[in-house]
Amino acid sequence: MSGSKCRRLSGTLVKPLLDSVDCVLFDCDGVIWRGDQAIPGAAQVVNRLKEKGKRVFFVTNNSTKTRAMYADKLAALGFDASEEEVFGTAYCSAAYLKTVCGLEEGGKVYLIGSPAMGQELEAVGIRPTGVGPDPVAGRQSDWANVELDPEVKAVLVGFDEHFSYMKLNRALQYLSRQGCLFVGTNRDTRLPLEGGKAVPGTGCLLQAVETAAQRQAQTVGKPNQFMFDCVASRHGVAPDRCLMVGDRLDTDILLGSGCGLKTLLTLTGVSTVADAEAHRGSGSAERQGMVPDYYVESIAELLPALQG
Amino acid sequence: MSGSKCRRLSGTLVKPLLDSVDCVLFDCDGVIWRGDQAIPGAAQVVNRLKEKGKRVFFVTNNSTKTRAMYADKLAALGFDASEEEVFGTAYCSAAYLKTVCGLEEGGKVYLIGSPAMGQELEAVGIRPTGVGPDPVAGRQSDWANVELDPEVKAVLVGFDEHFSYMKLNRALQYLSRQGCLFVGTNRDTRLPLEGGKAVPGTGCLLQAVETAAQRQAQTVGKPNQFMFDCVASRHGVAPDRCLMVGDRLDTDILLGSGCGLKTLLTLTGVSTVADAEAHRGSGSAERQGMVPDYYVESIAELLPALQG
Repeated sequence: MSGSKCRRLSGTLVKPLLDSVDCVLFDCDGVIWRGDQAIPGAAQVVNRLKEKGKRVFFVTNNSTKTRAMYADKLAALGFDASEEEVFGTAYCSAAYLKTVCGLEEGGKVYLIGSPAMGQELEAVGIRPTGVGPDPVAGRQSDWANVELDPEVKAVLVGFDEHFSYMKLNRALQYLSRQGCLFVGTNRDTRLPLEGGKAVPGTGCLLQAVETAAQRQAQTVGKPNQFMFDCVASRHGVAPDRCLMVGDRLDTDILLGSGCGLKTLLTLTGVSTVADAEAHRGSGSAERQGMVPDYYVESIAELLPALQG
Repeated sequence: MSGSKCRRLSGTLVKPLLDSVDCVLFDCDGVIWRGDQAIPGAAQVVNRLKEKGKRVFFVTNNSTKTRAMYADKLAALGFDASEEEVFGTAYCSAAYLKTVCGLEEGGKVYLIGSPAMGQELEAVGIRPTGVGPDPVAGRQSDWANVELDPEVKAVLVGFDEHFSYMKLNRALQYLSRQGCLFVGTNRDTRLPLEGGKAVPGTGCLLQAVETAAQRQAQTVGKPNQFMFDCVASRHGVAPDRCLMVGDRLDTDILLGSGCGLKTLLTLTGVSTVADAEAHRGSGSAERQGMVPDYYVESIAELLPALQG
């Protein structure tokens, strides 16, 4: 089987692949947009897929936006999309805390994360605390005895531009309490930007908290299959009739393989064909999950097969 | 040999051990003090050792104080000690950047660390930048294009209570430049405090920066033998005539073993006899370096042999 993996998705192969699926899941950054710019042709591809009767979902590890904010961004960039089609880790982490961790209605969470994450938690009846700056004051013994909210039952770590020593310390103190849950949105270590630049991602913050707490977090985002379970449970899609399209082998493609989806790597983001070939040639069974079925330079290459 | 390791240093064994050395190196936190409280009897032990003609040094991974600040703290707690006897990582990192990394006179360093670290750098002619708060502003693309000092040749990470997302980001941007050196003071993950409490240590901050930069830092502190080399090169001590006293197997005892010193674990800090026995019984050659020659409940147990 591995001989037929990692194929260039050329002209004649596109239509049979699309005919074989009812549903296409797109990662966002590096796939349909980069930062605030749509990938040229991406909106047409998505919109044509939907016109052809395909169901389309947007599955992203980025935790900085609510579903509603993603729907707005998609619309502004010309994508035909609704809130219900968006699965970001702000939304999915709230679902994870309730369904997987069993956090009860009204439960309180210490949140290292964005206001958007706070909103998604509140939308499912979880109360967040901790959003915004938390500057340091006092000295070591004060930090160890910092005031904690007795109702907090979990620590949730996502992207937080206000991440600070004091937040790290507060997370350590909560996580030292018996039974405190520990969840992270994702482990992406960098957010790539135009021109080869990057800024630190949630993975850096999560690793700092894990090191301090001497505990490992459960992570919600890709490659955790929970992300696909969210889509499947709400929309009743069959894995073998789905195509996962992404730019990262270690998150998007690994999720797709693990869930039994068809997989397509697009080269407008992080991973390269050489990365995929290295996994394929490694002889490691584990790494085969990071080899996509197909790759394209850009998802715009799907467009000709969708026209007419 | 291993059968004679990890022995309780009981009454009759103390004097022969002390007679076999000219020099005693003490870790500080968890050994001679805890936080701001001296370990009972520790000052008398140190002072009697010196009266008996032993040379005494204080070797600590803590980067928050200059040598002068440590000398003041030691004096306030009743220890007979001078600046020249103190080797903290604020001082040793400055030495490391000059002697090991070859950073030239007047060289500039982006410092995630304390004002004390800045002072020790300045004392050897290195110019620090970055000390103090660095709050976040703007958005992702601004962060990736944050203003950098063109003269910065190295990033140094120590303990910094003002650690923030923006500092993490700035370190990433510097470390993405060709040839930028990357040094950390130490990898201790927690600062233990009274009552079983702890706050996050430099190791958490360093790990976040390493994850963001996708690079490993060189670390100066114990178990890096550079810490002993600093003492030996400035004071001409012979390793086989030295005793290293510490509360951590993975830093203090490993440094001592690696440099050919005699080693003594004290149980007033982090590590336990069970930890040491686990290393001894592991069958791992690497872990034998973390088995001390002797252990005591507290260094106060050395006192009877020093009296009279």
